[in-house]
Amino acid sequence: MRVVVAPDSFKGSLSAAEVCAAVAAGVRRAAPDARVAAVPMADGGEGTLDCFLGARGGDAVEVAATDPVGRPVKARYALSGDGRSAVVELAAASGLPLVEDVPPDPVNAGTAGTGELIADAVRRGARDVLVCIGGSASTDGGAGLLRALGVRFLDAEGEELPPGGGALARLASIDDSGVSEEVRATRFRVACDVTNPLVGPDGAAAVFGPQKGASPAEVAELDAALTVFADAVAARGGPRVHDLPGAGAAGGTCGGLVGLLGAEPSGGAALVAEAVGLPAALEDADLVVTGEGRVDGQSAGGKVVSAVAALARGRGVPCVALAGGVAGPLDELHALGLTAAFSLADGPRTLEELKAGAAPLLEAVAEQAVRLFRR
Amino acid sequence: MRVVVAPDSFKGSLSAAEVCAAVAAGVRRAAPDARVAAVPMADGGEGTLDCFLGARGGDAVEVAATDPVGRPVKARYALSGDGRSAVVELAAASGLPLVEDVPPDPVNAGTAGTGELIADAVRRGARDVLVCIGGSASTDGGAGLLRALGVRFLDAEGEELPPGGGALARLASIDDSGVSEEVRATRFRVACDVTNPLVGPDGAAAVFGPQKGASPAEVAELDAALTVFADAVAARGGPRVHDLPGAGAAGGTCGGLVGLLGAEPSGGAALVAEAVGLPAALEDADLVVTGEGRVDGQSAGGKVVSAVAALARGRGVPCVALAGGVAGPLDELHALGLTAAFSLADGPRTLEELKAGAAPLLEAVAEQAVRLFRR
Repeated sequence: MRVVVAPDSFKGSLSAAEVCAAVAAGVRRAAPDARVAAVPMADGGEGTLDCFLGARGGDAVEVAATDPVGRPVKARYALSGDGRSAVVELAAASGLPLVEDVPPDPVNAGTAGTGELIADAVRRGARDVLVCIGGSASTDGGAGLLRALGVRFLDAEGEELPPGGGALARLASIDDSGVSEEVRATRFRVACDVTNPLVGPDGAAAVFGPQKGASPAEVAELDAALTVFADAVAARGGPRVHDLPGAGAAGGTCGGLVGLLGAEPSGGAALVAEAVGLPAALEDADLVVTGEGRVDGQSAGGKVVSAVAALARGRGVPCVALAGGVAGPLDELHALGLTAAFSLADGPRTLEELKAGAAPLLEAVAEQAVRLFRR
Repeated sequence: MRVVVAPDSFKGSLSAAEVCAAVAAGVRRAAPDARVAAVPMADGGEGTLDCFLGARGGDAVEVAATDPVGRPVKARYALSGDGRSAVVELAAASGLPLVEDVPPDPVNAGTAGTGELIADAVRRGARDVLVCIGGSASTDGGAGLLRALGVRFLDAEGEELPPGGGALARLASIDDSGVSEEVRATRFRVACDVTNPLVGPDGAAAVFGPQKGASPAEVAELDAALTVFADAVAARGGPRVHDLPGAGAAGGTCGGLVGLLGAEPSGGAALVAEAVGLPAALEDADLVVTGEGRVDGQSAGGKVVSAVAALARGRGVPCVALAGGVAGPLDELHALGLTAAFSLADGPRTLEELKAGAAPLLEAVAEQAVRLFRR
């Protein structure tokens, strides 16, 4: 019997690798002859770099970059052992927490730092870049990121615009002649778990602007600027990203990556699964065990359990989820491919007890689930 | 698919029938085409009468009987719909709680009331009597019970002894010529979940006497009296019950029933399973779901989960236990035949939450377990 263990971390309790170890121990108690493959997973957020590096070898690369308000910042991304693939988290150089020490500046904040990390990865040979977005301080449509890769954003006088989303209101043309052949040859994928469009009442400025400190007037200003940006992308023959689901993620960074670099947006967990080789690992599996801190109806979104279940179903592999908490009904997850889900709780327990005892509890419930699977 | 649901009650939360209903609902969610047979179980203690009557039809019969200290008491036993089988709980007429209003009298307390219930059942036609023992106020070796069925306990002068274990010290002979043909034709089985012998340091007087109010001197007196009793049983060609495992149950009542009525002692849950027809129900089952409030290493004793698991294994049927709490390691239960056990806890919960929400939680975990079983 071959069992693949592909869980997310249990936030505040166990890393994905620790979850794998506990589950594997339980699988082996139930089936000492089982071959167990551990494929720690993540959803494009916390833990993604570690999980990518664990699967693909390589190291985290630290780069001197620019933070959302133009200050220097050291930031890390992951480069695979073969140097061909990279994972860049937008939060590393362009995240909101980096600017908590200064007054909010949503109109002028930018994403240059993330572009600098990507440029470094491409310079080192990466031609497959997974950009994990979310948690940005900016609403610049990814203009700062793109500028770091050679795109120029010009006003009516042909002058380059300053950083920040607000300046895009004066955008007259986009010049990408400075984008290198290497960048053009690179496949960009965007891990994006929201479905907000770039502009409008559900867009980047309206929905996420306020949490970045934007006043109602600034939200309106940024929404108008992003509309100018999207119009300019469309005017040069690019896709119409105004209403594209997900384009509004990370202050419109997803829209900019799709519009000007042909990036492919997808769910974070699905992209991570591909990056860590889960589809191949499932090819000859008899069972996959996934998990996350909490499994519920929401897990049918872009989370690890749903991504793993969908991959498993595509290959006819039963999929069991183990979680700290399981909140039904799970009909959507079952429809996606999840065979069954069990909580690691063994009776009345506090949250603290479940967190502290998560490893042995996971081992125990994994043993029981595999016993029932094998019967 | 045919699923048999055979759980104990969840003490303080759900009756066995309620557990069956919740589990059956979960089974049907997972497998709408399943045929589900509900066989509420008990372990010979609380709930046994209801579970027997539910399975076999019939009514509880109320009888005017004698309590442990000779006072009148109304007590009930269960007579099957066909009138051929009865379940008599010793606690009904001879239980310790009945005499909590008077000073303890462990030397003179007796089991006459239980014998009166049995006599009534036999008079009504029962020829298969399950006696559920435990919780007695007496240490009389079942002498009171046997006397109610026609056995005479005589001293050296041929005078009948008074009630109570202490009087057995003067036992010179046993006369069973007054036992009716009907009683002789009756099969007695004793549901007994302790392994204490009748006499000695682990015997009825030494171990259970103190909790019935016996002083050290009374314990010694009762132990000596039970030894005289066991000697007398052996002297007339009966079995040697002195050291028989379980003979010490209920103040030696088990020993007396075995020694003078040829009763067969066995685990309570196993006997109840037979009485409610579980073995037959399992014949064409694909899966049996059992359960109890708590499953742990102790469940490998005479409890419902272990009895059901053993029956299931004998028929090659996978057996899943659902419980409020599951405390591993479960190796002994697995060896007995338990495929897997899961807690109904769905995450951090207090005991009160688990009890209050037991029905929907059971339904949910049953659905998941059957999904995994079917995969």
